[in-house]
Amino acid sequence: MKEPVFLQACRRQPTPYTPVWLMRQAGRYMPEYRAVRDKVSFLELCKTPELAAQVTVEAVERLGVDAAIIFADILLIVEPMGVGLEFSQGDGPVIHRPLRSGRDIDRLHARPAAPSLGFVFEAVRRARAALPQEIALIGFAGAPFTVASYLIEGGGSRHYIETKRLMYADPGAWRALMAYLVQATTDYLNGQIAAGAQAVQLFDSWVGCLSPADYRSFILPHMQALIGGLAPGVPVIHFGTNTAGLLELLAEAGGDVIGVDWRTDLDAAWPRVGFDRAVQGNLDPVSLFAPLDILRGRTARVLDAAAGRPGHVFNLGHGILPHTPVEQVIALVELVHEMSAR
Amino acid sequence: MKEPVFLQACRRQPTPYTPVWLMRQAGRYMPEYRAVRDKVSFLELCKTPELAAQVTVEAVERLGVDAAIIFADILLIVEPMGVGLEFSQGDGPVIHRPLRSGRDIDRLHARPAAPSLGFVFEAVRRARAALPQEIALIGFAGAPFTVASYLIEGGGSRHYIETKRLMYADPGAWRALMAYLVQATTDYLNGQIAAGAQAVQLFDSWVGCLSPADYRSFILPHMQALIGGLAPGVPVIHFGTNTAGLLELLAEAGGDVIGVDWRTDLDAAWPRVGFDRAVQGNLDPVSLFAPLDILRGRTARVLDAAAGRPGHVFNLGHGILPHTPVEQVIALVELVHEMSAR
Repeated sequence: MKEPVFLQACRRQPTPYTPVWLMRQAGRYMPEYRAVRDKVSFLELCKTPELAAQVTVEAVERLGVDAAIIFADILLIVEPMGVGLEFSQGDGPVIHRPLRSGRDIDRLHARPAAPSLGFVFEAVRRARAALPQEIALIGFAGAPFTVASYLIEGGGSRHYIETKRLMYADPGAWRALMAYLVQATTDYLNGQIAAGAQAVQLFDSWVGCLSPADYRSFILPHMQALIGGLAPGVPVIHFGTNTAGLLELLAEAGGDVIGVDWRTDLDAAWPRVGFDRAVQGNLDPVSLFAPLDILRGRTARVLDAAAGRPGHVFNLGHGILPHTPVEQVIALVELVHEMSAR
Repeated sequence: MKEPVFLQACRRQPTPYTPVWLMRQAGRYMPEYRAVRDKVSFLELCKTPELAAQVTVEAVERLGVDAAIIFADILLIVEPMGVGLEFSQGDGPVIHRPLRSGRDIDRLHARPAAPSLGFVFEAVRRARAALPQEIALIGFAGAPFTVASYLIEGGGSRHYIETKRLMYADPGAWRALMAYLVQATTDYLNGQIAAGAQAVQLFDSWVGCLSPADYRSFILPHMQALIGGLAPGVPVIHFGTNTAGLLELLAEAGGDVIGVDWRTDLDAAWPRVGFDRAVQGNLDPVSLFAPLDILRGRTARVLDAAAGRPGHVFNLGHGILPHTPVEQVIALVELVHEMSAR
């Protein structure tokens, strides 16, 4: 039995075409997803394995992508930490008791690091059972910096002032927080792998707000510990945005596949992360709002920039945007398959 | 009479120390500024040359920086365009009649491209007259992409969907808008230069949302036209954020000084923009919230990364943040002068 094409590409093996999946492929832009969300809240959806598996699988069926990603959220891991997580309508996640000091972080340590996220593992099991063999299932987690930024800021942020302030002013507390999140995230991802995830993606979505020197001091060792602690043989996708200045460091931190946003061309990014890694990306998500002939040209340019060696997983540079037309997403998947057929 | 140290550095001449100024050095973080704003609105302040000159000069006196930047806003230029500009309290600028089509852009062209911004020129004259000779006065404007993004989105934006959609789907309309803004901005900056500005900075603050290929197609020729049309002999600072993937292209577009944010180390950035340019930057603005000894170390690292050749203007990687402690800003200026003294 041959491995799914997506996994072959993660392992830099030659594939008959470039596999494609899309970050946030199950989301608001899709009518099937909105129909489910009309009945349950976001958190209820995440916590109901049957429904989480359903939207995971439906997205694959609707789009024809080569991989599913389990429906979940990077902040589920913080809910058992007792910080008061709420997904408020429209405004994004809110954390009612953000961490602001070493004392807050010590308090966190009193709680068990292995969170009670069995509902995610159950959703993974159900999704894996429902998916055809040739479709890979991806698990995921937020990377420690990105999760910490929510824990400290109390929600999304523009300048990450409190996060950086803690990092700069109290490096001991920062290390303690990172160590705690590394342990929790390692356990969480290994749990997803045990339940059937065949690859995992670490979303360090907001790490691009850091300078290279800060990444090296405050992030890199923790990412190495985390990635080093994951079950061997399962490809790890290491993803961030605004990382055009950090790509070498992301690769040094680890991952079999480095996710690149559209701000760096793949032919410039690949030598920087090293040809011993696969690359994932990197169409600008707004391209999906462009007319089809423009979308075709832009897709071709991404494929061309990664041509010449195995190990490219096609994706957007970040998640699908809320009002993206579904038919354009379907067309994109077809274009990638058609134009990359070898 | 010797030139101000700031201008010497812009021209890559050896200087006795590294000159420093700070983006948004006259702003909300400063009590003197807030005292003025208690009496007048933001737009009134911009339009009252006496007050605009006053806050411009006061910031220099308070901080001990080597250059003043005229107090104004990058969106003043769009007010005469009849799009309904409003600076709403807290939410940032709003444009009530955003441009969404080629027709909207054609309508813009019916208006004269040379905007009635005499109040800015008068503020420049007054500030120049009030400043000591050794302090340079910088004029500025928003670069066409960044100004266009406000005109099209109707305000600040996260994903620039409407801007990119117009760019991708109607390149003719995009070119027309760029040509219009290039003409208006050229006239505006040359007016500031005629009034006494000794250098000008182009703020392409949001251009980092574009891929390198999009920058090359949709931005670069217009920036070249704009910079090529400015009065010769006056240093041009070309600044953007999130440009770690675009630095070579920014330099190709033009400018004597390339502004770099903290996401690229200056020792990595300088060879990329070329040693025939000066560089400006690039301390992370959040560093000003750190304790003094940390601030000192971080400042030293920026100076070190640019050491070894003339042509470094010290600055933050972006503007001073609203709640920054004034005493830290004063300390930063002292640190730069002290640690870079040759």
